[in-house]
Amino acid sequence: MPDPGSLPPIDHAAHRDAARSRLATAELALLLVTDPANVRYLTGFAGSNGQVLIARDAADDRLITDDRYVERAATEAPGLEVVVSREPLPVAIDHAAGRHPALGFEADHLTWRQGERLRGLAADADVRVEPTTGTVERPREVKDTAELARLTAACQVTVDALTWLLAEVVAAGRTERELALTLERRFLDLGGDGVAFPSIVAAGPNGAIPHHAPTDRPLAEGELLTVDCGAIVDGYHADCTRTVAVGDVAAELVTIHEVVREAQAAGRAVAVAGATVGQVDAAARDVIATAGFGPRFVHGTGHGVGLAIHEAPAVGQGGRATLAAGTALTVEPGIYLPGVGGVRIEDTIVVTADGPARILTDLSRELRP
Amino acid sequence: MPDPGSLPPIDHAAHRDAARSRLATAELALLLVTDPANVRYLTGFAGSNGQVLIARDAADDRLITDDRYVERAATEAPGLEVVVSREPLPVAIDHAAGRHPALGFEADHLTWRQGERLRGLAADADVRVEPTTGTVERPREVKDTAELARLTAACQVTVDALTWLLAEVVAAGRTERELALTLERRFLDLGGDGVAFPSIVAAGPNGAIPHHAPTDRPLAEGELLTVDCGAIVDGYHADCTRTVAVGDVAAELVTIHEVVREAQAAGRAVAVAGATVGQVDAAARDVIATAGFGPRFVHGTGHGVGLAIHEAPAVGQGGRATLAAGTALTVEPGIYLPGVGGVRIEDTIVVTADGPARILTDLSRELRP
Repeated sequence: MPDPGSLPPIDHAAHRDAARSRLATAELALLLVTDPANVRYLTGFAGSNGQVLIARDAADDRLITDDRYVERAATEAPGLEVVVSREPLPVAIDHAAGRHPALGFEADHLTWRQGERLRGLAADADVRVEPTTGTVERPREVKDTAELARLTAACQVTVDALTWLLAEVVAAGRTERELALTLERRFLDLGGDGVAFPSIVAAGPNGAIPHHAPTDRPLAEGELLTVDCGAIVDGYHADCTRTVAVGDVAAELVTIHEVVREAQAAGRAVAVAGATVGQVDAAARDVIATAGFGPRFVHGTGHGVGLAIHEAPAVGQGGRATLAAGTALTVEPGIYLPGVGGVRIEDTIVVTADGPARILTDLSRELRP
Repeated sequence: MPDPGSLPPIDHAAHRDAARSRLATAELALLLVTDPANVRYLTGFAGSNGQVLIARDAADDRLITDDRYVERAATEAPGLEVVVSREPLPVAIDHAAGRHPALGFEADHLTWRQGERLRGLAADADVRVEPTTGTVERPREVKDTAELARLTAACQVTVDALTWLLAEVVAAGRTERELALTLERRFLDLGGDGVAFPSIVAAGPNGAIPHHAPTDRPLAEGELLTVDCGAIVDGYHADCTRTVAVGDVAAELVTIHEVVREAQAAGRAVAVAGATVGQVDAAARDVIATAGFGPRFVHGTGHGVGLAIHEAPAVGQGGRATLAAGTALTVEPGIYLPGVGGVRIEDTIVVTADGPARILTDLSRELRP
């Protein structure tokens, strides 16, 4: 694994410019960004308390954080003026006062109480405020080279750990919890910074529970095992699922594995620049419906992935977001038979300019890898 | 470590009753709970998408989740009626319609957009809605026996791993990042479910950055090393910090270590039932101020800890929340000398009925443990 020092630097100023270019269209003078993944995307700052003000003139951009993070802000977000305060709302209002177009805020992140407080402060200061959606999330969908280096590294740790787990560790008698912990330790050994989310390890009938939490239940011969996991590298999240057989399994389980594998390949195949996420969902869903398991595929086909494990675009039925070269997403159809078992196969992929998507988690999708 | 199966079961119905008892006072018929830690506290459900409706009559309580989590909800929250929906807001409005007092919502958790949507739906359905604060967080401050068993287990994993790290691993030449990963692996080996937060490992001048992220900087002789870390067991978070010397350190560093140790003991000493959190903060802060380092203690003295790493009560200057037997909190004063180094000493403690607080992270606080 490349150590973080060897990864290419991220051009956060370019990320800010991408958000900035949307301000004029939205008739905003300033945007207050409070979502932590958006703050990291725009600045590199990864502390637990930070907010960003994006202005029409880059010289007016600000990072707001508290005393605990002043030095970290200087290191992680060099060249960005820092306002030290635990009260980002009045700071934002002060910075907006006297500018004529509005101050935007993230209506899908700010809490209801914060939003009301911001509106109260704005009224007192004669500032107009506007709820916004997706101003930073939209450009975040398309990853640049430096981001892809991190996402690729996170996926490589995941592939190496999961390949090893399935080949060397999985066996009848192991518990779900034991497998999850062994896998997560391996992520760290291989250079991952941690887990992208709590691993799902689901054996036998538990495999019919899409988001099962690992238990002390031991694997038995004749069961399917689903492992859904991902490592993090420098803030970027991998996401990968495989379902494998432990010993010989019933014909019905072999069938659903084949159907899901075909559905997942079909979904990946249409994930090209210009396609909609709805088309990706439909391609995977049609295979499952045609095989007669439509009602057993109980979730969307995937989601964007990057600085958050779930980010835009959601890959679901009728989704109209369009894929572009650099969009990172998961394709993860599944079939779940309550009381019997389930199959899910998932890759993290990146859309390319002209050709099939690049698979970042390209390990065997066989029932017996 | 006790395995989770051997921990006493949590009485979630009692937690719901504690929240329920506040409904009448607040003139609410129903409370919509959306904060995930509050949902887990009230039900045991730990999936990524779940909401709870608490009603005046327990038979009307509901857990709302989506298809992915139906079986998990039945396992984790038995006895609670589940509504399967990805649209909790209309479900809440439907459930509230016809009840005369208001539907409460968590104004510090629901996003501004969700709050506006809820208000719009409520107006259409002739339901009154009210923002609420702390209705679940307040009873959550006081941990019951089953919760304390988990918190104690998480702290014990943390103590064992940190004791081992400081005794066996810390040495000049090791990098901050290496120490963080080694520690976090040890949490898993000792039966922890994961990390309560990304470990802070800060050596030399980095110790002056309260929330420093570990780097590839190697430790050197003559430096202080601060490690702030915690394991999770069954959802409960430990939090513990120690600062130790690597080799011989300058007299100034020895001094600030002594001052912080004394301040931390002073803070713990006043953390008794009936005291306010402001008194705990003042006791620690006064020691540091008297020693002449007041401006170098740049954060609050601590925070509540449990299903979240930071929860009520905040232990800061002038804080008026009162400690009760069972309140779990951290006491973590620090002194930070920019460019030179820093010291923080932190324990997770539990207030007792009559006597000093019980220290759950009771390992050596010596400069050379």
